[in-house]
Amino acid sequence: MPAERLVIIGGNAAGMSAASRARRLNPQLEVVVLEKGEYVSYGTCGLAYLVSGLVPRPDDLVVYTPDYFRTRRGIDVRTGHEATEILPGQKQVAVRTGEDTYALKYDKLILTSGGAPAETIPGAQGPHVFTCNDLAGALALRHFLEERGPKRGLVVGGGYIGLEVAEALRRRNLEVTVLERSASLLEDIEPEIGEWVNERLARHGVRAEFNATVSSIESGRSGPASVLVTNERALTADVVVLAAGLVPRAELGARAGVELGSSGAIRTDNRQQTNLPSIYAAGDCTESWHLVTGGPAYVPLGTTANKQGRVAGENAAGGNATFPGLVGTLVTKVFELEVGKTGLSEASARAAGFSPLGVAVDSFSQAKYLAGKPLRAKLVVDRASGQLLGGQLAGEEGAARRVDVLATALTARMTVAEFVHLDLGYAPPYGPVYDPLLVAAWEALKKLGRRR
Amino acid sequence: MPAERLVIIGGNAAGMSAASRARRLNPQLEVVVLEKGEYVSYGTCGLAYLVSGLVPRPDDLVVYTPDYFRTRRGIDVRTGHEATEILPGQKQVAVRTGEDTYALKYDKLILTSGGAPAETIPGAQGPHVFTCNDLAGALALRHFLEERGPKRGLVVGGGYIGLEVAEALRRRNLEVTVLERSASLLEDIEPEIGEWVNERLARHGVRAEFNATVSSIESGRSGPASVLVTNERALTADVVVLAAGLVPRAELGARAGVELGSSGAIRTDNRQQTNLPSIYAAGDCTESWHLVTGGPAYVPLGTTANKQGRVAGENAAGGNATFPGLVGTLVTKVFELEVGKTGLSEASARAAGFSPLGVAVDSFSQAKYLAGKPLRAKLVVDRASGQLLGGQLAGEEGAARRVDVLATALTARMTVAEFVHLDLGYAPPYGPVYDPLLVAAWEALKKLGRRR
Repeated sequence: MPAERLVIIGGNAAGMSAASRARRLNPQLEVVVLEKGEYVSYGTCGLAYLVSGLVPRPDDLVVYTPDYFRTRRGIDVRTGHEATEILPGQKQVAVRTGEDTYALKYDKLILTSGGAPAETIPGAQGPHVFTCNDLAGALALRHFLEERGPKRGLVVGGGYIGLEVAEALRRRNLEVTVLERSASLLEDIEPEIGEWVNERLARHGVRAEFNATVSSIESGRSGPASVLVTNERALTADVVVLAAGLVPRAELGARAGVELGSSGAIRTDNRQQTNLPSIYAAGDCTESWHLVTGGPAYVPLGTTANKQGRVAGENAAGGNATFPGLVGTLVTKVFELEVGKTGLSEASARAAGFSPLGVAVDSFSQAKYLAGKPLRAKLVVDRASGQLLGGQLAGEEGAARRVDVLATALTARMTVAEFVHLDLGYAPPYGPVYDPLLVAAWEALKKLGRRR
Repeated sequence: MPAERLVIIGGNAAGMSAASRARRLNPQLEVVVLEKGEYVSYGTCGLAYLVSGLVPRPDDLVVYTPDYFRTRRGIDVRTGHEATEILPGQKQVAVRTGEDTYALKYDKLILTSGGAPAETIPGAQGPHVFTCNDLAGALALRHFLEERGPKRGLVVGGGYIGLEVAEALRRRNLEVTVLERSASLLEDIEPEIGEWVNERLARHGVRAEFNATVSSIESGRSGPASVLVTNERALTADVVVLAAGLVPRAELGARAGVELGSSGAIRTDNRQQTNLPSIYAAGDCTESWHLVTGGPAYVPLGTTANKQGRVAGENAAGGNATFPGLVGTLVTKVFELEVGKTGLSEASARAAGFSPLGVAVDSFSQAKYLAGKPLRAKLVVDRASGQLLGGQLAGEEGAARRVDVLATALTARMTVAEFVHLDLGYAPPYGPVYDPLLVAAWEALKKLGRRR
């Protein structure tokens, strides 16, 4: 009997995690990865640092090269090969490479086709306009910055990628304006936390405009670009970066009959299997299960991609793994400020049908007699059950990892009455004796009138 | 009907937490705190920083003064008043202040008499010998250091207080030797973590001697002290600090019939009530419930004292609060190194009857393309159930707060299969894309042969 063949479409976090896991579990399995770009397995989350120059070379972001996977892991990585069609009836993928096309049979298929920039702005293809979602885009932006020395930068989108790019441009001494469609930066950020983000950006000379929708971009061939905002004003810039979030790249699967969820991303079960037999999906092209809302959510992040990829790879190789879901944890750095969130914000909890109580506290990153930095924490608790629903933090020290404590508590479905007694570590250099998270929990308990 | 009176014996973390909570819940209650020393409510965990001078003045460690409690919270704080006897039959405490004694009636009593240095070494009362367990002791040590300018320091005990004091002495340019009774520093530290601690101390010129029992100390009135180690060698030093851990100050309660646990500390139920009616206990004089072993444990720490004090105060005031227990979390700073532990070490898990699997991993505090610091994590998992039993970390960045993630997971009784899927935050400045904790969990899962 010939070896079974696993074909994986997309060679970044989810794809290569899946490939590696499948190969390790079943050394007989032939594993082919189709990657239309030049790179596989690189640190997508470090792209802004490549733009700023903090990461000097693109190779620094590459975790493993295609050659490493080929020779050391026995995975047939094909860069520059694009899957153009899936034929589930024939268990076959149509592949294009350069001018050539070929058909590739599969026994198992994993879709890890990732996400694409969400913008569809007229003029987005202009020569001054860039994205920072993949290595090719980030490199093009960096070359433009280094060769053309633009003075004025516009970043369209104030999510975490937009802010990381804004910081990168600022570090290259551009004047930077962030255009955010909604009324606040960092999607779903609490007002108490967003306030600190706004202040930090202003301190570093980054302008932010809110409720600013970009309707079109006009690029002169050599001159600056003109960005039409909200159909009213024209802003002029030397470089424009589109960073208004990701949409799932799901159309290849959808055309073949793979079911999508309400988010437009591929729907899978907790084994990462799609509605079609032998076809799995993982990473930024898929929906996940949100453990707090108990519903689907589209949260495209590298950590989730890795975990889902591993599960998809294991199952495609004949194993039986499950991915239980996520709580929507995100941490990012805004200049010196650590900012993080997990679970539901007060507003999103209300939108999800909870009756949330939000409690924000101001504290410090060290005991008061040491020179700690201000730290702000907000917890969101369900008034009915006392269950923790989410939390956010900001501060120059100690914010990012405290978010993980909350993420762990959310996963365990802790109530705030349970949370308040957590045996968290204390030493004066690492926090106040009453940890800000526990203070917030205590305040929440008092407001709920629960006295335990 | 006259107001009920709550008497609290001991005015530090547990005592003042209890007093404040009781007062707030029941403004009619008369609350009297008997504190034999001069200070109440100060940051005991910051004493080593007072010794080093990093904290300039003792007042900097004081959270609230006695006067604040008297005037702002209506709590009758009596410093310089020592409870010498409890008469449960009469509901009465005998008190000594200066030359005077008096009897104080109580309706409810809370014992928060704290812990005392564990050493009973002949010669420990000598003029060169100090402790660092309370503000008076730390101040005496500091004055000696500043006025006498000793050159050679000996620290007896290599627990976290011993190491903090050693660092403080080193920062004052003393030659420092730590004498540790057992084979490793920091009680119950994993060998993989202890190795880093030893290396860090050596790098800063702190000598550590292991298996070194101090049998006696001889102090010349003006000359140096001579410390006899293991009945064999005499070491000479200009200052000796005894830091061999705490024992509970439980004898006052015990003489009155308050039941002690196997650790020698006061046994309470989860409402912090002792075996005697109307008598509660909290803080360093009491035993706690260990959530991992499901048995009693003596873990004297300020955070626990605060929580237990609050519960005792609430119940003494007629409420109904419970303290569920602890997981034994400890974090400390050894020069630049963050060191933390929670739950059971591999050795202590084995001693507690588990069949533990220990997995240590080496990682970094940032994504590999940034300039992160080495980070080491060890997880301990029960082979039979897959349940997490404990974990320890060391590193210059990101170790302390990751211990809290483990503490939260331990409290939630997570298995390693659940833990490995935790949605922990990732951003390149705050960790590698595969968090060290999740890598360790994944390694543990593989070794357990569980593939989910």
